[in-house]
Amino acid sequence: MAPVLTPQAEDFPRWYQDVIAKAELAENGPVRGTMVIRPYGYALWERMQSEVDDRIKAAGAVNAYFPLFIPESYLRREAEHVEGFSPELAVVTHAGGKQLEEPVVVRPTSETIINSYFAKWVQSYRDLPLLVNQWANVVRWELRPRVFLRTTEFLWQEGHTAHATGAEARDYARTILHEVYERFMVDVLAMPVVLGRKTARERFAGAINTLTCEAMMGDGKALQMGTSHELGQNFARAFGIEFVAASGQRELAWQTSWGASTRMVGGLIMCHGDDAGLRVPPRLAAVQAVVLAVKAEAVEAAARVAGELRAAGVRVHLDDRADIPFGRRAVDWELKGAPVRVELGPRDLAEERATLVRRIPGSKEPAALRGLAEAVRLVLEQDQVALLAAAEQARDKRIVDVESAADVVEASAGGWARLPWADLGQEGEARLAEQAVSVRCLVRPGGGVPDSEDEPDLLAYCGRAY
Amino acid sequence: MAPVLTPQAEDFPRWYQDVIAKAELAENGPVRGTMVIRPYGYALWERMQSEVDDRIKAAGAVNAYFPLFIPESYLRREAEHVEGFSPELAVVTHAGGKQLEEPVVVRPTSETIINSYFAKWVQSYRDLPLLVNQWANVVRWELRPRVFLRTTEFLWQEGHTAHATGAEARDYARTILHEVYERFMVDVLAMPVVLGRKTARERFAGAINTLTCEAMMGDGKALQMGTSHELGQNFARAFGIEFVAASGQRELAWQTSWGASTRMVGGLIMCHGDDAGLRVPPRLAAVQAVVLAVKAEAVEAAARVAGELRAAGVRVHLDDRADIPFGRRAVDWELKGAPVRVELGPRDLAEERATLVRRIPGSKEPAALRGLAEAVRLVLEQDQVALLAAAEQARDKRIVDVESAADVVEASAGGWARLPWADLGQEGEARLAEQAVSVRCLVRPGGGVPDSEDEPDLLAYCGRAY
Repeated sequence: MAPVLTPQAEDFPRWYQDVIAKAELAENGPVRGTMVIRPYGYALWERMQSEVDDRIKAAGAVNAYFPLFIPESYLRREAEHVEGFSPELAVVTHAGGKQLEEPVVVRPTSETIINSYFAKWVQSYRDLPLLVNQWANVVRWELRPRVFLRTTEFLWQEGHTAHATGAEARDYARTILHEVYERFMVDVLAMPVVLGRKTARERFAGAINTLTCEAMMGDGKALQMGTSHELGQNFARAFGIEFVAASGQRELAWQTSWGASTRMVGGLIMCHGDDAGLRVPPRLAAVQAVVLAVKAEAVEAAARVAGELRAAGVRVHLDDRADIPFGRRAVDWELKGAPVRVELGPRDLAEERATLVRRIPGSKEPAALRGLAEAVRLVLEQDQVALLAAAEQARDKRIVDVESAADVVEASAGGWARLPWADLGQEGEARLAEQAVSVRCLVRPGGGVPDSEDEPDLLAYCGRAY
Repeated sequence: MAPVLTPQAEDFPRWYQDVIAKAELAENGPVRGTMVIRPYGYALWERMQSEVDDRIKAAGAVNAYFPLFIPESYLRREAEHVEGFSPELAVVTHAGGKQLEEPVVVRPTSETIINSYFAKWVQSYRDLPLLVNQWANVVRWELRPRVFLRTTEFLWQEGHTAHATGAEARDYARTILHEVYERFMVDVLAMPVVLGRKTARERFAGAINTLTCEAMMGDGKALQMGTSHELGQNFARAFGIEFVAASGQRELAWQTSWGASTRMVGGLIMCHGDDAGLRVPPRLAAVQAVVLAVKAEAVEAAARVAGELRAAGVRVHLDDRADIPFGRRAVDWELKGAPVRVELGPRDLAEERATLVRRIPGSKEPAALRGLAEAVRLVLEQDQVALLAAAEQARDKRIVDVESAADVVEASAGGWARLPWADLGQEGEARLAEQAVSVRCLVRPGGGVPDSEDEPDLLAYCGRAY
């Protein structure tokens, strides 16, 4: 049988497009750079939303919603911010059949509009910290769009907070990085992200510090999976977020913002996928186990088994489409990366067993129907752990410690180069950029996130990125 | 103490604005007609989403996401549809620093873009029914905006389905009306909606039949809370949704679409609110019970009680802001309409009891701390039922059966007028429209939803509407 997908080794970007099409994850939209997220792809995002939302709430933030449309003038209030975003803006000039007096921008991110409300809501230190998150669509006009990774419109959460002191804001930006993003990405997505600090060059437009989670894709490139910014008092100054401190003095608030988007779906595909398709980590999967009736005779038994798995807390899909050849359905679920398939054929039934196919290790073995739910639960737990370990191993094999800046470009061809930041520096970073290699993040020698670019002995991870 | 809100009897629209401001539900956005949904208001919407989403999934539909931007040309393909929506469109003409070759419209609803994909996805009768829903923001430029009820941007779910036969599509539109909307609105929102059929004049642009849920607000006006449309083959023809039937013949699909939006938050406020503020039905409430520490000495006990209620499955908020006067906090929770308050003062503690304040009946009584969680659960159940019964009674009092079309306008001053549709007819309906009175829906004499406007003995509900 001809492979359904272009092999990764032959053409990784093409493999990625193939998986997205064949696993029915998404399609391009009619307006350049937009995407249609199909039900199976959207189910991945819904599960991501739910897991991230739980962690955001546990970190004390509450959800709200701010308008899609922002007056153009708001964007101009923070100088670095407007410089960063203005090339990417989509602008509404006509509405309700008339030309608008002031054009409105479709939000590329919501710092400006949210902070204009924070300025009203924050009056006293008692109003702080103010911890708000929103789930929304945002628009950034992309010149080189790529489904999930870089789209003109994407879905995300964006958190915005205000604090009484710089230290509190700094701590909260780290709480989000670790308690929300790291825990979600490592524990649920099974993606071993490197946490670090962005260099000044790579910082968010308007931030004083950007913290990041960087993941390695199957081709050795990097993907920025989520960022948490300290905004200092930049936006507080631009929008007048002032409060009366316990001391009675008027002070400017200290702020953070942080976001993670549908780009994570792309990261998931490129981190765990293989030549047979997607591999979905069990804790994320909306469909953890598919029960397949091989032929019509097995439909009744398959429904019963599916019910037993569901009762045991497994997220199950029953595939009883006995009129579609079994082989085609098996390939389809392989493509879609459902962690476990429970296949029931007439012979299996006679022997009171099923065939248990595990997508992550790629194994296939008989399993007794008696006690099957427990066996499936155990396998799901094991394969979650195995997937993370495999991703970690694959990543570490592609990280090369280099001696000097001169070796970085070559070493980043198939992975990341790591070297002392002092040996690279901002000038070295600028030279790498000419070769499309960037500093993904700076970390402490032991792996911690630095408080400043000037800490001694920092290491720089360098690579090509999506 | 001066009332915090304008009394309803004095000025209902002003009361509504007051509640929204004082209960911190929402604010106007900077672009005319847009709104900021504040955390307490958004929590109501989040709970609505979750309850509606469960019911949509139980009805077999799956979630997906389609782009915000639609090429202008798509809107023109269905003649009635474009006529209905073009006065309300917001248009992006510039993006990425350039003028666009073809302007793009910000979706006012997604029939056109979704059906252009359905045309690709539906090839055979095996692909049907195709049942898709999306949660999204949409934009309709409003001349007379009003927070939640009629905003330039609003949040909603929109379902879109394709079926092999007209009968199946008709059944599914009704399934959504009854199983999703009616059950949610009656069972969760405690709103006694009247279900019926829209007249041709009030139908969705492009539909062959619109079914509706109409609720009565506290001033006797109507609010359309959700609609479910049969689209016939109109969009299938415009977008080429054709399939090979089991017979081998090529046929056009039959379709439905259906939506409910953040407007429901406005409906909830105006249906259940009173002069002291909002009253949130217990099943909806994100905060079902607030445990208030009257003074600092009670904070520890309040936290313990809150923990016990939470363990019993009650959605609890602990109000331990002992530095804010108790009276101010009590008024605030009254305004926000939390169904139950458990107030703990030093004297209560000495007597091992709390004061249980029920927002819905407006009662206040001591309750022993022992067995409190069970008592609160019972009260929440009772008050859910009581709220629905009260809304039903208030509504029925304001429905007047009238003898002839001439009496409708007067009878609709403070409620709804009901009369035989045959006595009104399309001409009578047109005359009512000149007085801002509309036919809200047609129902069968026994209360069922008619299959056609021409069924005998139909009754018309008429009223003013938001």
